[in-house]
Amino acid sequence: MGFDADSAVFRVHEGGKLVLRSTLPLVDRESLSLAYTPGVAQVCTAIAADESLAREYTWRSRLVAVVSDGTAVLGLGNIGPAAALPVMEGKAALFSEFAGLNAVPIVLNTTDADEIVETVERIAPSFGGINLEDISAPRCFDVETRLRERLDIPVFHDDQHGTAIVVLAALRNAAAVSGRTLADLRVVVSGAGAAGVACTKILLAAGVGDIAVADSKGVLHAGRRDLTPVKAELAAATNRAGLSGSLRVALAGADVFLGLSAGHVDEDAVRSMAPGSVIFALANPNPEVDPDVAHRHAAIVATGRSDYPNQINNVLAFPGVFAGAFDVGARSITENMKIAAATALGAVVAAQLHPECIVPTPFDPRVAPAVAAAVAQQAVLDGVARLPALGGVPGGP
Amino acid sequence: MGFDADSAVFRVHEGGKLVLRSTLPLVDRESLSLAYTPGVAQVCTAIAADESLAREYTWRSRLVAVVSDGTAVLGLGNIGPAAALPVMEGKAALFSEFAGLNAVPIVLNTTDADEIVETVERIAPSFGGINLEDISAPRCFDVETRLRERLDIPVFHDDQHGTAIVVLAALRNAAAVSGRTLADLRVVVSGAGAAGVACTKILLAAGVGDIAVADSKGVLHAGRRDLTPVKAELAAATNRAGLSGSLRVALAGADVFLGLSAGHVDEDAVRSMAPGSVIFALANPNPEVDPDVAHRHAAIVATGRSDYPNQINNVLAFPGVFAGAFDVGARSITENMKIAAATALGAVVAAQLHPECIVPTPFDPRVAPAVAAAVAQQAVLDGVARLPALGGVPGGP
Repeated sequence: MGFDADSAVFRVHEGGKLVLRSTLPLVDRESLSLAYTPGVAQVCTAIAADESLAREYTWRSRLVAVVSDGTAVLGLGNIGPAAALPVMEGKAALFSEFAGLNAVPIVLNTTDADEIVETVERIAPSFGGINLEDISAPRCFDVETRLRERLDIPVFHDDQHGTAIVVLAALRNAAAVSGRTLADLRVVVSGAGAAGVACTKILLAAGVGDIAVADSKGVLHAGRRDLTPVKAELAAATNRAGLSGSLRVALAGADVFLGLSAGHVDEDAVRSMAPGSVIFALANPNPEVDPDVAHRHAAIVATGRSDYPNQINNVLAFPGVFAGAFDVGARSITENMKIAAATALGAVVAAQLHPECIVPTPFDPRVAPAVAAAVAQQAVLDGVARLPALGGVPGGP
Repeated sequence: MGFDADSAVFRVHEGGKLVLRSTLPLVDRESLSLAYTPGVAQVCTAIAADESLAREYTWRSRLVAVVSDGTAVLGLGNIGPAAALPVMEGKAALFSEFAGLNAVPIVLNTTDADEIVETVERIAPSFGGINLEDISAPRCFDVETRLRERLDIPVFHDDQHGTAIVVLAALRNAAAVSGRTLADLRVVVSGAGAAGVACTKILLAAGVGDIAVADSKGVLHAGRRDLTPVKAELAAATNRAGLSGSLRVALAGADVFLGLSAGHVDEDAVRSMAPGSVIFALANPNPEVDPDVAHRHAAIVATGRSDYPNQINNVLAFPGVFAGAFDVGARSITENMKIAAATALGAVVAAQLHPECIVPTPFDPRVAPAVAAAVAQQAVLDGVARLPALGGVPGGP
């Protein structure tokens, strides 16, 4: 797993993973005079008079900045901007491959939330949307909230909302497969970082019966004195039974385990869950519950790994979310748009539902178009679109 | 010249002029696991341990940020970041087409020099070099100086140094064609903005006999009380004859007129120049001296226009300058490297020298490789290279 320049991984990364090209060949005086001076001055003048024309005559309306400070990269933690760059390049490549969008990695040499917000705000005229990535909690919540307030383009922290969208889609289908509704379920979430907070919020909004969230010190409850403001808010909205203590306490009798941390849950704790339980053990590369153990006790199992069925992978969400937002020139990504994305994603496999098929595979070509269409339509319904959705809005005027 | 969506210019700009793609198709589980998780973690870990590996395993070592605040765009002036974007996209396209480099436009919604420096510094880990573009004087000097001090990657304000490199190459060849040396020449520079300052400095460094620089208020001299620090420095280094008064005064008997402003020089002033004069009237699209008038009185004429011979176009310099700097991992672009670029550029047409061929055309395929090789070799000689030049350094150890 160390540095081996001859390995397939390092060979694939030689020279980086992105290439940027001109859309037209600049091979003669005429092409140069159209695309550059003197012709370009006409386009500049038109945009100076009416900035909305930048949407049509620059690349920014379909351009995502993949912004990271390198503080929470994969399971590696705070490795800094240079070391984070290969992940951000990969993310940009996924935007291109899965949704035909342009995306540029922007890694920052500051980890100060004020400075991150300020910097992104200053470079924002270059981009059509901001995908925040691998910024550690709790700064990520503050950074996203402030950028959403200040910018009139989509801002989306994928570690929060990409995960939340896919988890919601998968849990709805898991409930459907087992003849239950979300309201029937008591969920235990392990992890109160970016993904834990966002998943809990979207699951509550979608109608999950009850949720207990545990961080490294145990279940969040109103009596804990060590909670950040974000965790205190979560404690107030969850844990109706007033549980306290370890994750193990919460798991007894629970219907769903949602693992979003690097912890380990042993077989006894898994065995203590309710019959027909659902286990989403999403830590990568080592799921919180060993998949073999999970399958011995649970009716439905999902992981973040590509070598097991039911892979919960953010690539099922973010390409379509941005594509849909861009299609209608959305000013932001609303909570409804995220739920619409989850609904569309889950519906892709409605006809094939099975305990080992609660989400599509990452390479299912139906996913990004379905998510994009749903997000675009919901943006129109929510009044954040600058343009009408293609094909109109079902049920709309 | 207004907004006509059906015109060729606007059609060429539809959707923007750049496209960003993955270097490898991400079509199956294996390719995804190499380029993204879990494989990418190995690359991140290696770079975290040794940041120099980012050079080989990310795209940044051949990636230019084309940074502008939109304050001095073409002849249009301060049109803001969104309206500047088509020019920056064009510049990025030229980097790709002429030197195979990746370049990303970064337009800023601040015009404060401190904030520009701070912002570029914060996003710098994303890039291998910074091309400053269309930032108005005198802020551009301060911004470039401070970024050069703070960053260990090439920082190059193209409006200054790109122009200066091409002007020096052209003027050397103009002198050679007419049997003179640079030391024989008295030059009058019209314009004391970014290009005027940089051209004057490089021409003095290259040995031009004397230079008088005029701004909109007349010739710069030590007695003027209205000079910015940059202009005062220029006044001290130029105008040996102690001229004062208008541009017209300076032109009488001058050997060379170098126009880098939007002003107009009438035929009487042109007629007053020395016999065998050289006129570089680079304002675009309207040269300071009408080309027909210039040809009636001067031995050699150059403009910024593509429809006349001797086009002084920055694209002759910047792609090769950055390519050469990147080839050896240069930490900066030194004055010697700029002069080496000019020497190499001028040498491309050494065998074809003629009053109507003192610089190559922009589409001469020999230009970028020649400039890149010279810049790379000089970087090694100047001790700013991290890697050896390909093929070694002529005259080196």
